[in-house]
Amino acid sequence: MTIKDVAKSCGVSVSTVSRVLNQHPDVSEEVRQRVLDEVERCGYIPNNSARDLVKSRSDAIGVVVRGTGNLFFSAVLKTVSEEIERYGYTMVLHYIGSDADEVKAGAILEREKKLQGLLFLGGRFDYTPSELSVIGIPFVCCSYTNYFGNLDEKDYSSVSIDDYATAYNAVTELIRRGHRRIAAVVPSKDDRSISELRYRGFLAALKDSGLEADESLIEETGGCFEMPDTYEGVCRLLDRTKDFTALFLLSDTTAMAAMKALEDRGRRIPQDVSVIAIDGLNVSEYAIPTLTTMIQPAEEMGRESVRILMNMLKDPSYTGHRLLAAPLREGASVRSI
Amino acid sequence: MTIKDVAKSCGVSVSTVSRVLNQHPDVSEEVRQRVLDEVERCGYIPNNSARDLVKSRSDAIGVVVRGTGNLFFSAVLKTVSEEIERYGYTMVLHYIGSDADEVKAGAILEREKKLQGLLFLGGRFDYTPSELSVIGIPFVCCSYTNYFGNLDEKDYSSVSIDDYATAYNAVTELIRRGHRRIAAVVPSKDDRSISELRYRGFLAALKDSGLEADESLIEETGGCFEMPDTYEGVCRLLDRTKDFTALFLLSDTTAMAAMKALEDRGRRIPQDVSVIAIDGLNVSEYAIPTLTTMIQPAEEMGRESVRILMNMLKDPSYTGHRLLAAPLREGASVRSI
Repeated sequence: MTIKDVAKSCGVSVSTVSRVLNQHPDVSEEVRQRVLDEVERCGYIPNNSARDLVKSRSDAIGVVVRGTGNLFFSAVLKTVSEEIERYGYTMVLHYIGSDADEVKAGAILEREKKLQGLLFLGGRFDYTPSELSVIGIPFVCCSYTNYFGNLDEKDYSSVSIDDYATAYNAVTELIRRGHRRIAAVVPSKDDRSISELRYRGFLAALKDSGLEADESLIEETGGCFEMPDTYEGVCRLLDRTKDFTALFLLSDTTAMAAMKALEDRGRRIPQDVSVIAIDGLNVSEYAIPTLTTMIQPAEEMGRESVRILMNMLKDPSYTGHRLLAAPLREGASVRSI
Repeated sequence: MTIKDVAKSCGVSVSTVSRVLNQHPDVSEEVRQRVLDEVERCGYIPNNSARDLVKSRSDAIGVVVRGTGNLFFSAVLKTVSEEIERYGYTMVLHYIGSDADEVKAGAILEREKKLQGLLFLGGRFDYTPSELSVIGIPFVCCSYTNYFGNLDEKDYSSVSIDDYATAYNAVTELIRRGHRRIAAVVPSKDDRSISELRYRGFLAALKDSGLEADESLIEETGGCFEMPDTYEGVCRLLDRTKDFTALFLLSDTTAMAAMKALEDRGRRIPQDVSVIAIDGLNVSEYAIPTLTTMIQPAEEMGRESVRILMNMLKDPSYTGHRLLAAPLREGASVRSI
C-alpha cells in the first residue's frame, strides 16, 4: 500500500493526498474527508514506515524553566530555542514556579509530549539517583550542578558557572577595594541550592581574607530571588544596623531592588554603600548607578547545554559537565575605601 | 490488525508494545527492535486509526516572538505558555530579531511543525491580505493591531492595548501636571508600526491641549526599542537642547536607558526632567526613581490571545479583537510644575 494507491482509490493526485496528510489548508473539506476515510480503510502509513512514524513523533526537546520572572533565564532561553531549532528539533517549553518540583514536571512532560531529551533551566542542587529515576531520557541541568546531591557524574550533564567561586570572587573584589564590613542579603543560607552555595562562597571569601562573618550583617529573605522580598530584607537589615560599607546580592534583579531600598532609606551608592552582585544582565547596566556584577555567560550557557544534550541523544553513554567563567563587569556601584 | 496481534506475534505483552510505541525507556533494545520490526512488517497503526494519527501530530501552536530582549514579551510568554498547555496543546516557540519578518517565520514554522494555530508576539501594523496569504491557519496578533494595514477584521484576530490612546493618555498626564515643553525619544516617527502609532498619540495629546510640537524636542533613535540606542538618542537631544521639563518614552526599558542618560548628564529626575513611559514592568518599579508608566496588562493579554485562538480553532469563521485598558502606574519620575 503506497501513497499512489491511496491517490488512485480516491481519484485525486498524489500531491493532494500529501497535502491532506500534512494538513495543508488548500484542500476542500470533501476531498480531505475522502482521503482520510481511504487512509483509514486501507491502513496506509505515511512515509511507508512505521518506524519513521514513531521517530517523527519525537523530535521534541522539553525545556522546563523554573521561576517565571527570572530575567537571566529569559536571556538563556533565547539561545536554547535557537540552538534546538538549529539541530532540527522542536522545543517544548514549560514554565514552573520557582519553588515547584522540576523533576516531576519534566517526567510528566516527557510522557505527555514523548520527549527525546530534557533541559532544566534552574533546579535543585541536591538530586538523589532515586529521585531522578522518573526521568527516562537524557537531560542537562542548565545553570546549576549537583553540588549538594550524590549523583554519579556519568548519570547526568550540567552547564553552569561555578556558583561558589563566583560569589567568592565578587566578595574578594569588595575586599580588594578596601571593604571590611560586608553585608549580604540572600534568599536562604541553607536551601541546599543556589542560594546556599553562593552564600558559602561569600563566607569563604571573608574567611580567606581573615575577616569574620558578622551574623548581624546577614539577612535571609526567604522566597526565590523576588525583588519585593529583597527590598524588604534590605530594609530589615538597615533597621538593625547601618554599620556596613558594602552589600553582596546573589542576582542582578535583587541587587536593583536592594539599591532601591538603600536609596529610599537615604543611603547613597556607592558613597555610603557599595553593591555587587552576580548575573550581568543588560538592564542592570542602566541601573543608577550602573551595577557592578559578575557576568553569567547566558549565550554560552544555552549553547553548551544544547550541544551536550545533542551528544547525549547520539550516544547514550555520553555525559558532559561544563563550568563557565563568570568575569567581573565593572560598574559604578562599588567604590574603593 | 490490532495491538494484541502485534504483541502475540512478538511474544510480548500488550503493555510492552505500548511502551515501545510510546518510547518509554524501560524496554530492552532487543525487544524494542523486535516490536518495531513487527509493527513495520504488518503495517499496524497505533490507535487503530489513521485519522487519530494525523490528529495526534498536530497539537502544536506556534508562538513567534519578535525581539529577543523584550522584557514585556517575556512576561506575556509565561501566561501564553501556561494557557496553551491548559487547553491541551503544545507550544512551539520561535524567536526572531526585532526587524525580522514574522509572517515568513510563521509560515515556515506552520509547515515544518504542522501547526494548528499561530500566535505572533509582536509584529508589523500594516499587513496586507496578499502578504498574509502564506499563513494557512488561524492566527492572533498579540500586542499589536492592523492599524496601518487593510486587513478585513474578519480575516485575523488581535489583542493589544490601544497604543495611540495609551500614548495620548501618558502625555496628557504630563500636561495635567503642568508640563508644556515635552520631549519624546522614539525609535521612529514613521515605521507604520508601534513606534509611529504611539508617536501619533503623543502629537495628538499636545495638539488637543493647544500645545505645538517642537521638532527640536523630538529625537529618533532608529532600531527597535534597544536601550543603547535610546541612551544615545537622549544624549543627542541634550546636546541640542535642555529646554524641556518632561520626556516621553515608548517603553519601560527605553525609559530606564533615558533616565540613565539624563542622570549621567547631570539632569535630575524628576526635579529637572519628568519621565513617563508605557509598559509597567516589575523591574521599572525598582528604577531610581520608580518609573511612572502606563501598565500593559501582560497576563490578560496572553490569556485573551490564547482564548481567541482556541475559539478560532473550534470555529473557522470566528475572529476576535480586544483592546485592553492600560492604566497609569504612579511612580516618582513625574512631578507637578
